Amino acid sequence: MNHHFSRRMNNAHKSFIREILKVGENPSVISFAGGLPNPDLFPIKEIQEACNKVLTTGGADALQYSTTEGYLPLREYIAGRYLKRFGLTVDPAEILITNGSQQGLDLLGKIFIDEGDNLIIEQPGYLGAIQAFTAYTPNFFPVPLNEDGIDIATFSETVATAKAKFFYCVPNFQNPSGITYTKECREQVARILDKSDTLLIEDDPYGELRFIGEPSPTFRSYLGTKAIILGTFSKIVVPSFRLGWVYAPKRIMEKLIIAKQGTDLHTNYFSQKIVSQYLQDYNIDDHIEKIKVVYKKHRDTMIRMIEQHFPSEIEYTKPEGGMFLWVTLPAGLTSMALFERALTKDVAFVPGNPFFVNTKGNNTLRLNYSNANEEMIEKGIKKLGEAIKELITSQAKTLCPA
Amino acid sequence: MNHHFSRRMNNAHKSFIREILKVGENPSVISFAGGLPNPDLFPIKEIQEACNKVLTTGGADALQYSTTEGYLPLREYIAGRYLKRFGLTVDPAEILITNGSQQGLDLLGKIFIDEGDNLIIEQPGYLGAIQAFTAYTPNFFPVPLNEDGIDIATFSETVATAKAKFFYCVPNFQNPSGITYTKECREQVARILDKSDTLLIEDDPYGELRFIGEPSPTFRSYLGTKAIILGTFSKIVVPSFRLGWVYAPKRIMEKLIIAKQGTDLHTNYFSQKIVSQYLQDYNIDDHIEKIKVVYKKHRDTMIRMIEQHFPSEIEYTKPEGGMFLWVTLPAGLTSMALFERALTKDVAFVPGNPFFVNTKGNNTLRLNYSNANEEMIEKGIKKLGEAIKELITSQAKTLCPA
Repeated sequence: MNHHFSRRMNNAHKSFIREILKVGENPSVISFAGGLPNPDLFPIKEIQEACNKVLTTGGADALQYSTTEGYLPLREYIAGRYLKRFGLTVDPAEILITNGSQQGLDLLGKIFIDEGDNLIIEQPGYLGAIQAFTAYTPNFFPVPLNEDGIDIATFSETVATAKAKFFYCVPNFQNPSGITYTKECREQVARILDKSDTLLIEDDPYGELRFIGEPSPTFRSYLGTKAIILGTFSKIVVPSFRLGWVYAPKRIMEKLIIAKQGTDLHTNYFSQKIVSQYLQDYNIDDHIEKIKVVYKKHRDTMIRMIEQHFPSEIEYTKPEGGMFLWVTLPAGLTSMALFERALTKDVAFVPGNPFFVNTKGNNTLRLNYSNANEEMIEKGIKKLGEAIKELITSQAKTLCPA
Repeated sequence: MNHHFSRRMNNAHKSFIREILKVGENPSVISFAGGLPNPDLFPIKEIQEACNKVLTTGGADALQYSTTEGYLPLREYIAGRYLKRFGLTVDPAEILITNGSQQGLDLLGKIFIDEGDNLIIEQPGYLGAIQAFTAYTPNFFPVPLNEDGIDIATFSETVATAKAKFFYCVPNFQNPSGITYTKECREQVARILDKSDTLLIEDDPYGELRFIGEPSPTFRSYLGTKAIILGTFSKIVVPSFRLGWVYAPKRIMEKLIIAKQGTDLHTNYFSQKIVSQYLQDYNIDDHIEKIKVVYKKHRDTMIRMIEQHFPSEIEYTKPEGGMFLWVTLPAGLTSMALFERALTKDVAFVPGNPFFVNTKGNNTLRLNYSNANEEMIEKGIKKLGEAIKELITSQAKTLCPA
């Protein structure tokens, strides 16, 4: 029997990363593959305290159905934090609580994308966004990243030709590249979009995790109601609660709420109340500070080991925050071949190819430094360096068989 | 500036029920409008115990990212319960944990529906399903319900002509009508679908809440892998956790997992572990028994009051379980007019119209009996009876102005 799946499922394949992550579950493998926050930093006791408080003081309410928009005190907290961090005055009615920011991507796809619509994305781009949008069958126009952010010349040209519904970007410590847009880059992006009909979606899961340099404002400050911002508690509190949000102007929010209601009625209300209680009782800035200290140490160790053990022709990014670093092998080497070789040495990472919507990026790879400890980073990067050198040697042999 | 929303948002309007429910929030109003379980029955202390256990014994794991499919012990529990209740052997790989069964509807819409595809639904039909599927712009073919379930003659004809992707139904204590399919009706539905290419989606949120008569098997028993079953913990444990599931054959499950991953990565893992712990430590059958005793009492009181206070020409269903009862006014009276009149007496309900995908049903309404207490039911139904009588009198005056 034919189950007549929808056309949108024709291009949907099981995530390659997901399959890679299964390899990383083997405890003898040092994995730089996942995108997991470090669980040693989870505020377990504080969450437990918040659970008990919420259930003791208003248990029945916390366990009942709730509103599609999300728990108002949590939305007020998020609005207040935009004010504190960026001086932005945000109406809580502009905040929708979602099942992680991933659901924000799905809902934005739902309300904006008709089959065949054009979207501009970064290259390499966040795989989860590519997956979420693909379900609504758009055409992707990828624009390359450079060390300052998006390549402005290509971006400007693409905005003019693509007439895209929106440009999706991760301007802070991008996943997968670790690249951050400079202020100048942001200004230029805003100037280009301001003259167009293309909206901007800024996905900002890592913005609070900056350990070098000064934070830049969100695109809301540059583009006003032409910018939509996504945020999440997954990286600064815990991921299992699946609590993210969309910050969007009201006429867009109205459509998002309708879409969210049909999609799952509302986000887990119990977890919203717990996180709200936790944020009320504890200083989140102190907690974020702790995370940043650890991640910076991990990042520094990874870069130090790369400098020592990778051949000098290997290029890599030096992220100012976040959880990822991006490696580019010399042309002709493929990260898939490196992956297989590294695995024999019990080291895993994510080959870069799935982050490209075209066939490029075969010589790139993503390394995560938040989840492994320093000893593992030292050992793993050393082994990865060995694997790269072996690959170069074997490649040279293939090229000169004599 | 034009935000270029997708075509699917053209027909999406804010839920009428949602607006109605806001009226019901007024504490002076006796509301039969919502679809809320009774919060007095929530196992608050037991949930708190489970939270503490989960966080004490494996806190870091419970707060980390997890798998798209859902927590395996919870899926095993669900599989085991199908065996216990219906003698069905279920592979946990056929179970996907979703954000309430509402998300199951969205995911099924996503993997099956292309623009313009035909679907068969019940009339009246579950509003949440109509909303979820509408996002994928299908054509609805509504088939009327009668007291034995779906109208078989119309159903048979519709299956032959519509060549629908699927038939969506709520065969136990349907929302909104409270109607249950008889065994004979189920057999006939299965016989008709078995010869067609149309799948069946059985939404079963209330099946465990039967207080009269014997349970019927799920459609999986009749139709094998042509049936997809949705379930939820919202009505037997708590709704705020948003924990539901889809039980589907593996080739469909494969697509559902891909769709779920792009939609929100995975369902709140912390809540999955809590409910799993709760189900392990407590006897859910004892808890369900308590719920059934209360709901049956409420249902009996509502029917008794209707018999006493509604004019004899008013028709209503006598549900064997679940949370809703359906009232049909004599033709010519509209439930919207009754709604306005009832509100002046501080009584609310949901007019039936939104449960119809056409313009029918103006003289119908849904009454919820799970959430109000008996005293409120007695008082509210008496007032509603008064409102109906007044409406009939005023209508008669309008018809005979002399």
